[in-house]
Amino acid sequence: MAVEPTWISNAWYVAGWDAEIDTAPLARTICGVPMVFYRRLDRSVVAMRDACPHRLLPLSMGLREGDSIRCKYHGLKIGPDGVAEEMPLKSEAVNRRICVETYVVAEKHRFVWVWIGDRAQADPALIPDLWPCSAEGWVFDGGYYHVACDYRLMVDNLMDLTHETHVHAGSIGQPEIMEAPIATRVDGDEVVVERWMPGIEAPPFWKEALKREGPVDRWQICRFLLPSAVMIDVGVAPSGAGATLADHDHGVRGMVVDFMTPESADTHHYFWGMARNFDIGDAGFTARFKAQQGGVFAQDKVVLEAQQRAIKANPELKLSAYRIDEGGTRSRQMITRAIKRTTTGFERELA
Amino acid sequence: MAVEPTWISNAWYVAGWDAEIDTAPLARTICGVPMVFYRRLDRSVVAMRDACPHRLLPLSMGLREGDSIRCKYHGLKIGPDGVAEEMPLKSEAVNRRICVETYVVAEKHRFVWVWIGDRAQADPALIPDLWPCSAEGWVFDGGYYHVACDYRLMVDNLMDLTHETHVHAGSIGQPEIMEAPIATRVDGDEVVVERWMPGIEAPPFWKEALKREGPVDRWQICRFLLPSAVMIDVGVAPSGAGATLADHDHGVRGMVVDFMTPESADTHHYFWGMARNFDIGDAGFTARFKAQQGGVFAQDKVVLEAQQRAIKANPELKLSAYRIDEGGTRSRQMITRAIKRTTTGFERELA
Amino acid sequence: MAVEPTWISNAWYVAGWDAEIDTAPLARTICGVPMVFYRRLDRSVVAMRDACPHRLLPLSMGLREGDSIRCKYHGLKIGPDGVAEEMPLKSEAVNRRICVETYVVAEKHRFVWVWIGDRAQADPALIPDLWPCSAEGWVFDGGYYHVACDYRLMVDNLMDLTHETHVHAGSIGQPEIMEAPIATRVDGDEVVVERWMPGIEAPPFWKEALKREGPVDRWQICRFLLPSAVMIDVGVAPSGAGATLADHDHGVRGMVVDFMTPESADTHHYFWGMARNFDIGDAGFTARFKAQQGGVFAQDKVVLEAQQRAIKANPELKLSAYRIDEGGTRSRQMITRAIKRTTTGFERELA
Repeated sequence: MAVEPTWISNAWYVAGWDAEIDTAPLARTICGVPMVFYRRLDRSVVAMRDACPHRLLPLSMGLREGDSIRCKYHGLKIGPDGVAEEMPLKSEAVNRRICVETYVVAEKHRFVWVWIGDRAQADPALIPDLWPCSAEGWVFDGGYYHVACDYRLMVDNLMDLTHETHVHAGSIGQPEIMEAPIATRVDGDEVVVERWMPGIEAPPFWKEALKREGPVDRWQICRFLLPSAVMIDVGVAPSGAGATLADHDHGVRGMVVDFMTPESADTHHYFWGMARNFDIGDAGFTARFKAQQGGVFAQDKVVLEAQQRAIKANPELKLSAYRIDEGGTRSRQMITRAIKRTTTGFERELA
Repeated sequence: MAVEPTWISNAWYVAGWDAEIDTAPLARTICGVPMVFYRRLDRSVVAMRDACPHRLLPLSMGLREGDSIRCKYHGLKIGPDGVAEEMPLKSEAVNRRICVETYVVAEKHRFVWVWIGDRAQADPALIPDLWPCSAEGWVFDGGYYHVACDYRLMVDNLMDLTHETHVHAGSIGQPEIMEAPIATRVDGDEVVVERWMPGIEAPPFWKEALKREGPVDRWQICRFLLPSAVMIDVGVAPSGAGATLADHDHGVRGMVVDFMTPESADTHHYFWGMARNFDIGDAGFTARFKAQQGGVFAQDKVVLEAQQRAIKANPELKLSAYRIDEGGTRSRQMITRAIKRTTTGFERELA
Repeated sequence: MAVEPTWISNAWYVAGWDAEIDTAPLARTICGVPMVFYRRLDRSVVAMRDACPHRLLPLSMGLREGDSIRCKYHGLKIGPDGVAEEMPLKSEAVNRRICVETYVVAEKHRFVWVWIGDRAQADPALIPDLWPCSAEGWVFDGGYYHVACDYRLMVDNLMDLTHETHVHAGSIGQPEIMEAPIATRVDGDEVVVERWMPGIEAPPFWKEALKREGPVDRWQICRFLLPSAVMIDVGVAPSGAGATLADHDHGVRGMVVDFMTPESADTHHYFWGMARNFDIGDAGFTARFKAQQGGVFAQDKVVLEAQQRAIKANPELKLSAYRIDEGGTRSRQMITRAIKRTTTGFERELA
């Protein structure tokens, strides 16, 4: 961890998709800490430091025994509470002070969350409200990419959709996005960027979704949530149906949901997905849409990793911010203020 | 860039072969600075910092539009003068203070040159005089290698041809090279190493070139030119025809031309080629000779990269210099003096 | 080499198997020093710094000429005493002060040994007594692995066989090893860990070796020898035959012989083998057994390299020691004391 942390402590981060974390141990480094995740028989999730307290072999190489895990090296058996249950030599009395650090986890909105910071403050009510992932009447699916860049570069990317025209030319980009005015505002603990495109022809994807010809009103509303989520409300409604930026369930509507979990100062775990409230029973459409979205986000990964390398190769140059970057800039400011507010002794000790 | 620069500022370096730099952008790091090169429609060359002034994405990933380049990320359009021409959001007024650093370039002797240092001092008259690359009555061709070693190790290599016997055994090496006496002298801003082998049997290559049997006088004259070029005058003339070290256009004559452009402290761009003033219309011979020369220089690359690794693995050992190394030693001294003389504030700021 | 050396100076280390070191030069870094090894025509071994005194090219890239070696770069010829015999330019008088550092070597117990430290103290009598490798009535064979971990992690591994149950489940591991008591003691300059398993059923391997049914007494006696060898006395004897931990040539007996030579602070050369004093004429059994042992030690390599990575990824965590680790702990203490006792000016200069 760098001397100046680039992420917030005392916050929930996505550790994995609900489907990624299974009975077999999964190794993943979260905010600089190597962790192992697995499910108990009752399906609740265990999160521990991924290092046996004996000789530090990753516990993720170990074997499950009931709800416990036995280290692959010398067989120290660790319970789901992180406390030793059996010594390597069976005749040696168990020393229950032998334990591995555990982390507070929660499961919500299709993700497994882990609390980084002071565990006494871990309140599930603080989990970012990614409501479209689990709301009645909505269907949600997505994927995971490891991205070799500072997670805040991905926040920048998602809070400014102008890049779609250039990075995603040929898929979802279109010139109108460069032309429509945008409005950025801070809404409590959130940053919102709104773009309203009234009376345009729907692009092919949305025309297919709406299942009718004719002019539409189109919207893109990007919303940054601490510690590092972005939800983007997208869709079209027939012109004249009365849709507004504030109220637009008059047509077809989707919610892009992204969560960026720092792995190190210059790598992160990118969890992406799309929720929608139309044709929710069409599993084939869901799968096709996830594949298409995965292709688009793979283009972002290429660009962001090149950007990260360029930042390192040009150490005397600084990022600039234009009008389109206001959403990203305000999101970063919010992160910086939260870091100052929440950095704890635990964090400073690691730093 | 290391605290002690290993290369000269206020000098021209080869950025690429004339044929390498085309309308599509080419990324190449010159003297520690990531640059992008491309040609305008009038074929003149543009050189810029390879980082968009907006978010630092390499401009080399961008798309050309006329003589300008549009960044692949958010579409900032930069003119060939480095100044912004169009903002990502079309409605935002262009801020012409947004610009990327540009570099002075020139084209001469089949190479594109870039000036490193204070641009006010960039005088095309200072381009090293690689005259055989563009002289009437001569033909010239060659290639490019990326070599993972300090460029000065390649200078050493080229200023001492003794290594041919061992590194190029089986191709151009022959024992006579180890036996002939050499003379080293400083000639103004240049270092010269001369080897004269009178009355020997021509090696196969030169016999084929000369197209006759009988004893020949053979010469090798290595010449180092600041900042990092080596030209080697090689050839044979029939014994008795009157050739001397000073005047030897009595037989067949070639000029090996090499330019080493630093990329980093321990990597460089190696531009190599061969000019000759006989059979200059024989394109097949030119191509065969280039392929042969490329094979020989690939042997040097293997040796020099191993030498660089050995220097790092044996940090307490120093290079030694024997009589054969006098040419390389004097060339390095000339480089060191020029670094002291030319290091500018610009350079010190980067260091 | 780290500021605090992790290995002992003034000691013999295995440089290679007798069969590995041949007339062609072999490059191997021993205790941080790049070395080259080759045999003279009389089969005695030469060890030199693997860097030509001229321009540091690895001498291991050179060509043998008689007992000498000629550098591949400029042809400096070095005798087996490390002293220059011929200059690159033949007309230059040989300067016999030009020399490369040589190292004292010895050949014993099927290995080539090199002395690290003050050469005046290099006494062959100090070579670790790996007697089973060359004793009358015993047969010995084994192999070599490069392992990316601190050599002391391998010492830990070998001085505690509890890990067999988990790392080698399915091959040589069995639960009894976790259950049998162990005794650790220091025996002069050696550390000994003993495990006695009386009246058990022989595991398949030993039953096949013993060629009879019925209860056996089984033993495992691990012995650490400075600077970094472990020999493990293993075998079974029929119960009632009178075998004891002190005297057990009543059945079938093998000696696992391991030597760990540091390459760097976190990599080492692992020489492993097995000697036995039964069926010593059965070459097929010897070869099958070596292959089986190689598979087992490849499992250790996977675990140890993961352990090394985990140590780096969790810098604030420390290794713990339980009862099973007493052998490794005492061996490390012996190494640490010997480092303090033997660190010389030579060592401190490198550090």
